[in-house]
Amino acid sequence: MNTYGTLFKVTLYGESHQEAIGAIIDGVPAGIKIDESLIISDLEKRKPNAIGTTPRKEEDHVHVLSGVFNGYSTGSPIHLMIKNENIRSKDYKHLKKQPRPGHADFVSHIKYKGFEDYRGGGRFSGRLTAALVSAGSIAKMVIPFKFHHELIQVGSLKNMSMLDAYLKDIMEKGDSVGGIIQLTVSNMCVGLGEPFFNKIDGEIGKMMLSIPAVKAVSIGDGFEAIETLGSSFNDVIIDASGKTKTNHSGGTSGGLSNGNDLLIKVFIKPTSSIALEQNTYHIENESIEPLSIGGRHDVCIARRAGIVLENALAIVLADLYLIHKAYKD
Amino acid sequence: MNTYGTLFKVTLYGESHQEAIGAIIDGVPAGIKIDESLIISDLEKRKPNAIGTTPRKEEDHVHVLSGVFNGYSTGSPIHLMIKNENIRSKDYKHLKKQPRPGHADFVSHIKYKGFEDYRGGGRFSGRLTAALVSAGSIAKMVIPFKFHHELIQVGSLKNMSMLDAYLKDIMEKGDSVGGIIQLTVSNMCVGLGEPFFNKIDGEIGKMMLSIPAVKAVSIGDGFEAIETLGSSFNDVIIDASGKTKTNHSGGTSGGLSNGNDLLIKVFIKPTSSIALEQNTYHIENESIEPLSIGGRHDVCIARRAGIVLENALAIVLADLYLIHKAYKD
Amino acid sequence: MNTYGTLFKVTLYGESHQEAIGAIIDGVPAGIKIDESLIISDLEKRKPNAIGTTPRKEEDHVHVLSGVFNGYSTGSPIHLMIKNENIRSKDYKHLKKQPRPGHADFVSHIKYKGFEDYRGGGRFSGRLTAALVSAGSIAKMVIPFKFHHELIQVGSLKNMSMLDAYLKDIMEKGDSVGGIIQLTVSNMCVGLGEPFFNKIDGEIGKMMLSIPAVKAVSIGDGFEAIETLGSSFNDVIIDASGKTKTNHSGGTSGGLSNGNDLLIKVFIKPTSSIALEQNTYHIENESIEPLSIGGRHDVCIARRAGIVLENALAIVLADLYLIHKAYKD
Amino acid sequence: MNTYGTLFKVTLYGESHQEAIGAIIDGVPAGIKIDESLIISDLEKRKPNAIGTTPRKEEDHVHVLSGVFNGYSTGSPIHLMIKNENIRSKDYKHLKKQPRPGHADFVSHIKYKGFEDYRGGGRFSGRLTAALVSAGSIAKMVIPFKFHHELIQVGSLKNMSMLDAYLKDIMEKGDSVGGIIQLTVSNMCVGLGEPFFNKIDGEIGKMMLSIPAVKAVSIGDGFEAIETLGSSFNDVIIDASGKTKTNHSGGTSGGLSNGNDLLIKVFIKPTSSIALEQNTYHIENESIEPLSIGGRHDVCIARRAGIVLENALAIVLADLYLIHKAYKD
Repeated sequence: MNTYGTLFKVTLYGESHQEAIGAIIDGVPAGIKIDESLIISDLEKRKPNAIGTTPRKEEDHVHVLSGVFNGYSTGSPIHLMIKNENIRSKDYKHLKKQPRPGHADFVSHIKYKGFEDYRGGGRFSGRLTAALVSAGSIAKMVIPFKFHHELIQVGSLKNMSMLDAYLKDIMEKGDSVGGIIQLTVSNMCVGLGEPFFNKIDGEIGKMMLSIPAVKAVSIGDGFEAIETLGSSFNDVIIDASGKTKTNHSGGTSGGLSNGNDLLIKVFIKPTSSIALEQNTYHIENESIEPLSIGGRHDVCIARRAGIVLENALAIVLADLYLIHKAYKD
Repeated sequence: MNTYGTLFKVTLYGESHQEAIGAIIDGVPAGIKIDESLIISDLEKRKPNAIGTTPRKEEDHVHVLSGVFNGYSTGSPIHLMIKNENIRSKDYKHLKKQPRPGHADFVSHIKYKGFEDYRGGGRFSGRLTAALVSAGSIAKMVIPFKFHHELIQVGSLKNMSMLDAYLKDIMEKGDSVGGIIQLTVSNMCVGLGEPFFNKIDGEIGKMMLSIPAVKAVSIGDGFEAIETLGSSFNDVIIDASGKTKTNHSGGTSGGLSNGNDLLIKVFIKPTSSIALEQNTYHIENESIEPLSIGGRHDVCIARRAGIVLENALAIVLADLYLIHKAYKD
Repeated sequence: MNTYGTLFKVTLYGESHQEAIGAIIDGVPAGIKIDESLIISDLEKRKPNAIGTTPRKEEDHVHVLSGVFNGYSTGSPIHLMIKNENIRSKDYKHLKKQPRPGHADFVSHIKYKGFEDYRGGGRFSGRLTAALVSAGSIAKMVIPFKFHHELIQVGSLKNMSMLDAYLKDIMEKGDSVGGIIQLTVSNMCVGLGEPFFNKIDGEIGKMMLSIPAVKAVSIGDGFEAIETLGSSFNDVIIDASGKTKTNHSGGTSGGLSNGNDLLIKVFIKPTSSIALEQNTYHIENESIEPLSIGGRHDVCIARRAGIVLENALAIVLADLYLIHKAYKD
Repeated sequence: MNTYGTLFKVTLYGESHQEAIGAIIDGVPAGIKIDESLIISDLEKRKPNAIGTTPRKEEDHVHVLSGVFNGYSTGSPIHLMIKNENIRSKDYKHLKKQPRPGHADFVSHIKYKGFEDYRGGGRFSGRLTAALVSAGSIAKMVIPFKFHHELIQVGSLKNMSMLDAYLKDIMEKGDSVGGIIQLTVSNMCVGLGEPFFNKIDGEIGKMMLSIPAVKAVSIGDGFEAIETLGSSFNDVIIDASGKTKTNHSGGTSGGLSNGNDLLIKVFIKPTSSIALEQNTYHIENESIEPLSIGGRHDVCIARRAGIVLENALAIVLADLYLIHKAYKD
């Protein structure tokens, strides 16, 4: 259940405080030039290094353990491993007794019968997205599309030039805030996606909502377009390549890419870990009690999530691209 | 690519104007009481019978061709077939030359190399959702959860008691309108969903965005909650069953059901087919020309889509429920 | 669990005495000429019409309910349905009390908790292979390979010209007999199969052993070659196309097709249903008691199984062929 | 395509001469006691340490990088990694020009377009079976069945007490020899396997034929029983648990386990690498030329393959066991 994809398959493993996390990328065609500098620069974009992001630093050095020979993919699974190094040996046991609001502590304790590795969020840690990012870098090497991500709103703020001051204020309050990220893919081809159940919209939705903290996704115009009538929503086709005058549908028709730019918006909820004291049930004491979560947290995880969403999207497109190729003449 | 699910598998087949559509439902445990009246009443809810829905009538009689014996599931695939009966023999060939805006005409023509069955939308017809609904009825018989759907907004209208007048007005303008549907699942258990890639959020997102006309989905509070800070967004756990004081996260934590009600919102775009004349590219004439789409269309497909979303959701939950059962003691 | 394949997917449904059996064939590329006469002639080869085969006759008329338009595949799932017509309404209930040796009666009763449709073997009936054959006919239209099957041994008989007399003798004894069928595929390409777990050998093994009554399979030389040493077993490559001097490995190397003919041998066990009285446990009486199985049975099912194996093999190759295509330049 | 399983999923990665090989085992229920000593002792059985096996030594130290906490499975993927240490830096480039008979050199060169890692057999190396063995050890911890493997024939030799002398003789001739291994699983339950395409017979066949050098498999009596008539082949059921008097069908009926011992026979071909000079095509010289394969090879790989087959079988049964559990009450 930790594997995504049909022909371009990504398997993620690892927990926050175990030896390593990583990704097995299976189905990379032989002969793809593997540009390790892209993996490094993509991972760099995910790192905390701005106001509103955690002061925790990890090196995230990626080891390529298989599938690459003389700089090219061999056709065998590529294993990218990232060791867990900067692990604080603090005590997490109290979380088993008093699960944090907004976190998976309670549900994982029930689902895994008390055997979960609860340290640092375990399997549910945002840390696993580093492996996802590295897999997405490989995906980008397989496909000809161009990717762009942009943070378009944080809390009530839409002017990103004011972002540092805005987040500093929230940080001082001990609170956290969510954001909306827009993804754009250009240079698209026509026909990616397979009805009924593997539509490009559906696959994108699945992938985006697999990423921690994502709670909503739209392909093209979404909820905000509720007042638009059909005569305005429909995109007029203007040439033989399928180019449309507007792009309300976000680059898909009938669940297939239509050649126009893919436009995706993703809502990232406010970080669950906040400095403010919160109430939550204490299992042993059988009562609701205040909990203070220490540690180093992101005030606005959306600030670092863009590259995660972008690379996750690349995995989806690489898979649909290979499937599409199989059915072409 | 027309199959959904791991243990509770639904395969859809059919095109609008061929002999039949249907669903193969594989993985129904033996010994489930099959209540055909639920299939009938669910399909009834999908039928057009109100202002703003198409005047076309189809009987949608479901034939159970396998997998049920003496009123109970046998453990073998259940085949539900619906014959295509009320098919108008009008000419659709012009759509190959002048693809309709908002429809799959153009992309399917490219993807299927001109061999697609273009009549009545072919494989992309909303008609296939009748088969999906019937499969979802079976799913509901497998799981103990309770489902509810509600249309909460149509265009700018939030007061549903005014809906008939509102849609009549849009119909008279020759236009169409979208809607927002909220799904609620109660009586949930803790732990449905499998990280990393089979989270309940991700599976729901995939399924909802597989349904024609769906362009956005949120689990719990979505884009509209962008201004909420973490201290308010986090749901306080108040008892040993995991019940929370609020339900902003819509019944999921870390991608697993947390036992609270599932809350899902889905945006349905305005129907692509409108009575108003629209411009679109004419392939043979190599110019943008006006197109009039005749026929019988829904002004607001969202009015009929609630049961489709609800039953599609039931399929997701039936699959996760069986998977969850495999890992329990 | 009734679906085979990754890109060329076949889903089988049906039970011996329900309304219909059939196959959904998903992943047929658009634009394949659908030759219905091949389906008919393949099904004809499966029919009993020789000494040693059951006198039961069924029409096996195939209905194409979707996925074909103007004689070509549309890219949508093709549904082939065969109605169950010549069903004898005899009583099968006693089989629930006294399960037949060699049949699935006992195991299906336990697995399906008594809800199985036990009539005529239900889901385990050889009848389902008619649907499999029809799906295989479609597969053959997708791939350029040439198929041949041959019965090479029946019981102790290797001279097939004596077959009628041999089987008549066994029939008169009220007994049954097994056979060995050899499949040959020529015009192969190099590289079909995907290591580690989707090797062509493994996929063929899975498919062959999915067919009722098959108990053993070899790719190239098998158990009978146990005394051959490596210097003789190895096939010497003699030209740039990979052609080998001998073909002990049956056309595969390292789990991939090597361009030489595929050679597969399959062992079909003797038909379980025999006219002779047999002992078996009586569940209600709690004792071992004689059982007489009436009805119309095949003395040597291997006589009809060749086309089933051949077409099942075609399904495997169609799937590997499309996968292979996805990874090529 | 390097992943096996539906609920108990094993993904293998690695090539002979890259950094590491390993297995990701996904779907291990939380709370399983992980006995590392079993992994070590199973790997020990695979090591060459007898006459007829290669003098090459590798440590095969297994690193558990995720999924285990305090000695128990956490429910997260378990990653077992084995570093490639004893790698000889010899030159393999000539194999690209003159592919070895019986090996994957030629086919992998074509399939992977010349980008394959050809060193030491690359992805096709028997070395990957070390990772498979370790994954199978985990599988055994999940299921209650008992496993046994036995080498029953090597070349013409059936008396295993004479084996050392027999192999020494073949080794001196510079040749190699195959073998037949019998697997027995006792303490089985009734009902494992899912018709039509996931029968226990089919899954076993697929897995066995995925292992390098395996060319044939039978479930119960196979080709050698061709002369047996149905009255003898059928296994008489003798009690309410489904126990049969004989076990010709090898513990399966209708593709489901029937509670009797599973009996499987596997044919391992003679090792392809032999000391004797062989002829094979030289791509650059465009002629058939003699080739001498140096290096350290197994004369009879069957001597080490028993534990590989056994543990691979355990993976199949763990997967079917979890699936079976999902459908039970």
